[in-house]
Amino acid sequence: MTDPKVYLLDGGTLVIDESDVHWHINAGNPVRFPVYSVLVEHPDALILYDTGFDLDHVNRVLPFELPEQTEEQTIPAQLAKCGYSPEDVDIVVNSHFHFDHVGGNKYLTKATTLVHKEELRHAKVPEPFERLGYSDLSFDHEGVSYKPISGDYEIVPGVWLFETPGHTIGHYSLLVEMQNERSMLFCGDAAYTRTTLEKEWIAGFHLDPTKSVEAIRRLNYLARTKDADVYPSHELEPYLEWKLAPESYGGR
Amino acid sequence: MTDPKVYLLDGGTLVIDESDVHWHINAGNPVRFPVYSVLVEHPDALILYDTGFDLDHVNRVLPFELPEQTEEQTIPAQLAKCGYSPEDVDIVVNSHFHFDHVGGNKYLTKATTLVHKEELRHAKVPEPFERLGYSDLSFDHEGVSYKPISGDYEIVPGVWLFETPGHTIGHYSLLVEMQNERSMLFCGDAAYTRTTLEKEWIAGFHLDPTKSVEAIRRLNYLARTKDADVYPSHELEPYLEWKLAPESYGGR
Repeated sequence: MTDPKVYLLDGGTLVIDESDVHWHINAGNPVRFPVYSVLVEHPDALILYDTGFDLDHVNRVLPFELPEQTEEQTIPAQLAKCGYSPEDVDIVVNSHFHFDHVGGNKYLTKATTLVHKEELRHAKVPEPFERLGYSDLSFDHEGVSYKPISGDYEIVPGVWLFETPGHTIGHYSLLVEMQNERSMLFCGDAAYTRTTLEKEWIAGFHLDPTKSVEAIRRLNYLARTKDADVYPSHELEPYLEWKLAPESYGGR
Repeated sequence: MTDPKVYLLDGGTLVIDESDVHWHINAGNPVRFPVYSVLVEHPDALILYDTGFDLDHVNRVLPFELPEQTEEQTIPAQLAKCGYSPEDVDIVVNSHFHFDHVGGNKYLTKATTLVHKEELRHAKVPEPFERLGYSDLSFDHEGVSYKPISGDYEIVPGVWLFETPGHTIGHYSLLVEMQNERSMLFCGDAAYTRTTLEKEWIAGFHLDPTKSVEAIRRLNYLARTKDADVYPSHELEPYLEWKLAPESYGGR
């Protein structure tokens, strides 16, 4: 059986304080990090996990994150590199609804959006400290096709969403099972970095730090038991060594 | 009826990052703030709320908080200013068991320690990110007399503990009701500053930020309905205007 083909879509970079990458660590030190999406080409569906940030939104609402994004780093341009247009995407699933993970949803007009039911609720009625995170709801327009879900969820055979809340209430990580090479575990913001996984240093943005710790332990458990490589969400060093679209993983 | 007499005991100062005073605000800016305790002289009991930090412990375990504490700012010296010795204290209650609120408990050998049952559990088995907070358990010696409690609790008539969790799991704020002057509401670390109460800016140290927001709202509700002045825990400006021991409030 052929494995699904996985493309990593470059979405530009943002800057936050190191104490937000790793809670309480090195406050006052700005860190630039990558934002990316994951396109999974599977016989049953074309799936997009996360859609990056919208440059105009960040420039308007969070300019202090110093966004850098070329035209080539937008979702339509990245999909084109893989031979697709936005209308080809069947299923969108965001790790969570923070602005730097949903900015391209608005282009995917034909897709069904899988979302944890609690994530949708919090995005619409956030806690005071979540307001900036959930500031880009441009995807939540009339006619968007939501499919609320909960629990662990198999999107198509071998492509799994695992509940990893803490950073937000309904956060999902993505596992793409492979037979002919290493499976791929996309942590989303449950693990910004490899250090997160190694030291249990949670991010400085979170809804529930206790659950954030449990999510890290769950990711480490999944990586071990599923024999998967882990892909943290926001760390420049490993990212620079990964194959980016139009290159791909799997597909053999 | 005579009101209880309330003494504020000066315990020295510490330094933390402003983003820990108010989550995400001004990361990289160190702030020095006061640490104090509250002695309540009531006909039924001599009560001490919080006991500051132990200078040796902070110098050893958290030297980066740059502690400043003179001999006069220790619990025995502060009690002496009010005419008491440590053995005179009947009831100790700590807003929570973080090191800068329990450092003097060890001197109070004759007292019963009121503690939220969940606080005692977390102090003994903390989350990874709580380890430094709960690093001074010197008070947890053989023979200490704990009285585990939960829910809102009237210590003696007119002296109340109100549950305000979030910063920690079993955090208590203290209300001293007065008939002849303004009642006094000691927030503990449920509100480090007046800005916390005004803007709902929670502290960067917390177990559950959602509950931290609810605690702030509860404190504001209590201040309004009990017609009480609020005393935040860690802010230099109002502190410098308060009457410190041997001066006192109430007692008339």
